Amino acid sequence: MIPIRNVSLGCRRLLSTSSYTVRTHTCNDLGSTNINEKVTVMGWLSHKRMDRFFVLRDAYGSVQAKISEALSRECFIELKALLKDIPYESVIQVDGTVVDRGENRNEAMKTGDIEIHADKLTVLNRASKSMPMLPDMDASDKTRLLYRYIALRSDKLQRALRLRSEFVHNVRKFLIEKNGFVDVETPTLFRRTPGGASEFVVPAPPPNLGMAYSLPQSPQQFKQLLMVGGIDRYFQIARCYRDEGSKGDRQPEFTQVDVEMSFTTQEGVMKLIEDMIIAAWPESLNHIKPKSPFPRISYSEALELYGTDKPDMRIPWKIEEVKSNTFEFLRKKSDKNWVSRVIICRGAGETKMTISTKNEWKRLIRMNENGRNFSICNPSQKNWFKSVENQKIIDEFGLTGEDVLVVCWGEPDGVNWTLGQLRNYVAEICGLRSKNTVTAHWVVDFPLFSFEDGQLVSTHHPFTAPIESDKDALYDENKQKLLQIKGQHYDLVINGVEMGGGSIRIENSNMQRHVLNILKEPEYEMSHLLRALSHGAPPHGGFALGLDRFVAMLSGDGNPLTPVRDVIAFPKTKNGKDLMSDAPTTLSKKQLERYGITLVEKDSGY
Amino acid sequence: MIPIRNVSLGCRRLLSTSSYTVRTHTCNDLGSTNINEKVTVMGWLSHKRMDRFFVLRDAYGSVQAKISEALSRECFIELKALLKDIPYESVIQVDGTVVDRGENRNEAMKTGDIEIHADKLTVLNRASKSMPMLPDMDASDKTRLLYRYIALRSDKLQRALRLRSEFVHNVRKFLIEKNGFVDVETPTLFRRTPGGASEFVVPAPPPNLGMAYSLPQSPQQFKQLLMVGGIDRYFQIARCYRDEGSKGDRQPEFTQVDVEMSFTTQEGVMKLIEDMIIAAWPESLNHIKPKSPFPRISYSEALELYGTDKPDMRIPWKIEEVKSNTFEFLRKKSDKNWVSRVIICRGAGETKMTISTKNEWKRLIRMNENGRNFSICNPSQKNWFKSVENQKIIDEFGLTGEDVLVVCWGEPDGVNWTLGQLRNYVAEICGLRSKNTVTAHWVVDFPLFSFEDGQLVSTHHPFTAPIESDKDALYDENKQKLLQIKGQHYDLVINGVEMGGGSIRIENSNMQRHVLNILKEPEYEMSHLLRALSHGAPPHGGFALGLDRFVAMLSGDGNPLTPVRDVIAFPKTKNGKDLMSDAPTTLSKKQLERYGITLVEKDSGY
Repeated sequence: MIPIRNVSLGCRRLLSTSSYTVRTHTCNDLGSTNINEKVTVMGWLSHKRMDRFFVLRDAYGSVQAKISEALSRECFIELKALLKDIPYESVIQVDGTVVDRGENRNEAMKTGDIEIHADKLTVLNRASKSMPMLPDMDASDKTRLLYRYIALRSDKLQRALRLRSEFVHNVRKFLIEKNGFVDVETPTLFRRTPGGASEFVVPAPPPNLGMAYSLPQSPQQFKQLLMVGGIDRYFQIARCYRDEGSKGDRQPEFTQVDVEMSFTTQEGVMKLIEDMIIAAWPESLNHIKPKSPFPRISYSEALELYGTDKPDMRIPWKIEEVKSNTFEFLRKKSDKNWVSRVIICRGAGETKMTISTKNEWKRLIRMNENGRNFSICNPSQKNWFKSVENQKIIDEFGLTGEDVLVVCWGEPDGVNWTLGQLRNYVAEICGLRSKNTVTAHWVVDFPLFSFEDGQLVSTHHPFTAPIESDKDALYDENKQKLLQIKGQHYDLVINGVEMGGGSIRIENSNMQRHVLNILKEPEYEMSHLLRALSHGAPPHGGFALGLDRFVAMLSGDGNPLTPVRDVIAFPKTKNGKDLMSDAPTTLSKKQLERYGITLVEKDSGY
Repeated sequence: MIPIRNVSLGCRRLLSTSSYTVRTHTCNDLGSTNINEKVTVMGWLSHKRMDRFFVLRDAYGSVQAKISEALSRECFIELKALLKDIPYESVIQVDGTVVDRGENRNEAMKTGDIEIHADKLTVLNRASKSMPMLPDMDASDKTRLLYRYIALRSDKLQRALRLRSEFVHNVRKFLIEKNGFVDVETPTLFRRTPGGASEFVVPAPPPNLGMAYSLPQSPQQFKQLLMVGGIDRYFQIARCYRDEGSKGDRQPEFTQVDVEMSFTTQEGVMKLIEDMIIAAWPESLNHIKPKSPFPRISYSEALELYGTDKPDMRIPWKIEEVKSNTFEFLRKKSDKNWVSRVIICRGAGETKMTISTKNEWKRLIRMNENGRNFSICNPSQKNWFKSVENQKIIDEFGLTGEDVLVVCWGEPDGVNWTLGQLRNYVAEICGLRSKNTVTAHWVVDFPLFSFEDGQLVSTHHPFTAPIESDKDALYDENKQKLLQIKGQHYDLVINGVEMGGGSIRIENSNMQRHVLNILKEPEYEMSHLLRALSHGAPPHGGFALGLDRFVAMLSGDGNPLTPVRDVIAFPKTKNGKDLMSDAPTTLSKKQLERYGITLVEKDSGY
């Protein structure tokens, strides 16, 4: 099969993709309107047939050529021999005439109505005869990363990188042209921030030997300082860095669409971001474009109904309280604060929900401290619980043979967490989570502080402002009140994945100092920000969208679990390695001396 | 004087700078069309008068307000007391009605036709009574960097950052919308490159302890790999890093407009960049927009005529050979390869060219190994050279009283270098270098290799291709031929400063390996690129524009020596410090352990 590129053609009519080059057309440009034209095209040799026919591929598409029969016998034989000898993936130039393919046209190919009758064939750069892989063929992950520059020629990666470029450009046009935002670059060689455990460090050269810069996790402080500096509508497509080892599908460097605005409100920022996402949505994905306004749901409601603050709204099921005493028999005498709750998975059937699947879920759920006992069943199953008649359950919850009931019992938080997990698991196997739809919503009213390892911490970060009516509670004698304070924070959740978050910030220097004290964060590490807030800081707030994750979702037609490495030109492995160039490397003596550093011996595991 | 913002209004008609905020207008929006409107504006308190009048300033402009006389006596007195108490630079909100100022209008203020009669005054955030500086007032460089967030409110920095945002957006529109380029992000955590002395390093965490990433000086390798990957029209506004200590007006991190294209030629890239610069030129600077095509001048011609490969074309004077024996008397017997050359500085007069200025020039020129003897004079001066009659010189070079003659003698390269310097010095003091014009041109035909410290090095970098007719010389037995090879490299010079450069790259793996061998660069450090070139690499070339320097030139109305820190939101000092946040810092024990590093003691000089 001839590959057909599926690149978004948003502003294609304006484009001149061959300007400033020596080709007359790309491999995707030619059609019946070009018949009899003399053309010059260049690309990669991707197919050969009978030493005479061949297909040329470039970033835009493919076109068939054949050695012209109008050539002298001698030339014809010479070109055939040449073609026979050219390895696949070599870069060649074809000069020839566009000819109608008539009845032989290839409908699967955009340029399939025509072919080029080549008078001339030039090898611009010969490829190795033993290519380690071909662009659109299966190869191991390792091979595809080692030869990333070949994988990049594949339809999938060509489309993903172009989709990313298009989305980002649309974001810029919306923010700059429609809304007067200013694109400002902020430094990446910064100071460490409180905590800072997950910040990469950059040892400084003389005259600052013995000290180091940190690569920031986000431009948070800088964007707030820009607000204090009167740049009241800032954005940046910002490179950020986070050292999280090999946690999940994350890269040590990543990109966020970083926005901040003065004189605004929580609703103002949320509306801006909704409008931005919709305005920037790639044209080729209009069929999955969400509508605004995105629904708002509070943090507590999310936990109550979905057992998570990142509910996947493609799944229609909610957690319900069991008001009867049907499952009371599961309560032990020692169980105080006990509840039983259910999710009725309407239409979930029980396909694929084998005993071993369920056991696997049990194992996964028990790995978490919040994991609680649960049971899953559908009406056709007999003797589900020995002590309860099946029919009683069927009647009570109105079950049909198509439905599945998930019951969980124990202490409420654990029950909801467990049901939240099961809601996803069940939906996963009945295909609800692979639906090509995009559900976007906001989670709001998060607690400002949380308890973690016995310590009071910011639920998000120490710069988030409490909601107006909770501000007094910051200063309450009763420290328990702190945990009840709600922050002006908002998370954007798409299809069960957090795509970004933001908040209205604390603009008052005294309140910011007080919050740092509550958190036992050293004040001196933030003295520049505290000073700035006392020198004329406007009220302000903002948002950061995880660009890699968001574009991965777009490129996966709404699947937010599409790997981020598929939308990054040169990604690193989970272990932080660039297989292609073999980074990181050891350092030379000269480098170690320049930065006054000593490194431990290489990991023996390497 | 009330400051008037001079922000470029390129696409202003489309803008809604108050959308998503709680203000109705910016401080620059109001005029006679708003009379009798109820408005809400927010900004910084910048002037007060008679406890009743005040001026509010924001990013866009200023507006005068006064406490409304229509208020009840009680309210009026209360608001007056409030206003009296608000420190300058506090952020306030004014609710009121727009009123015609009639005969009292202020022509120097864009909103000077009206004023706001305030019914309500709200202090959104009180500033400290003892502000360390005010935005538009003089302060030391150190103070302005320490309180950068206050300096950012100044007209100058507001304009510079907005100009930068506008230029960059125009570049993107030209490349993406008009020419189908793809904006691709490349990694900044990379491997060290050969040499690599000026690359910052980032120690890697487990499982790569003992190794380090390098922060790249440019995306050079990645953009070439993208070409191999079939992204045939790439660009990126790329953050780059260079550890050059405190050399000149440079920052450890800087930004370049990075472009690469396949299937193109040297002329193709130069034309693209010319068109890009002209298309992206900010509207407010149309009066200094250069015209295309930019003149091309060869490297050797530049040295011959201007004594530098970065000639300032605002200066009309050229280096001329003295064909007579007028200055032969200066030649010593031992001087072989001796020349005398002159620059006739027509119209330079001799104002300010005092003995001490000339002595200072002598000192500067003698600091360089190329510095040669010279003499400067104008016709009115008597007995310039004792052995030559003034009138003879005046006649020979056709001098008038307005002209200045610069003579230099000795070995040709040194003479030209010296005259190149003097050409700039003389032009500087007669104001030619502060002319608000922009002269842009290309320097081409650079030598591919140069001698530096007795070693053969790349004049630019090892990836530059030789010109077609010089390719064979790469393999010549006679190594002297190497120095005669010309590279397909081109530098863009504006008003005497190199703004960027680019080249057609070597796409052939064997030739690239051969060049690395010539340069004695270790092949294994570049094995990924050599492999890539053998797996189907198209012919390609590109360009990188130094964005900070270019925007500095724009913001200085064509003056390319405008400090780059004036177009960077948060610049570092020459010593690599961020005075505001006090970066770099020492590291915590936890950080040192995480990265397995030991740092030397802090510089005692700190």
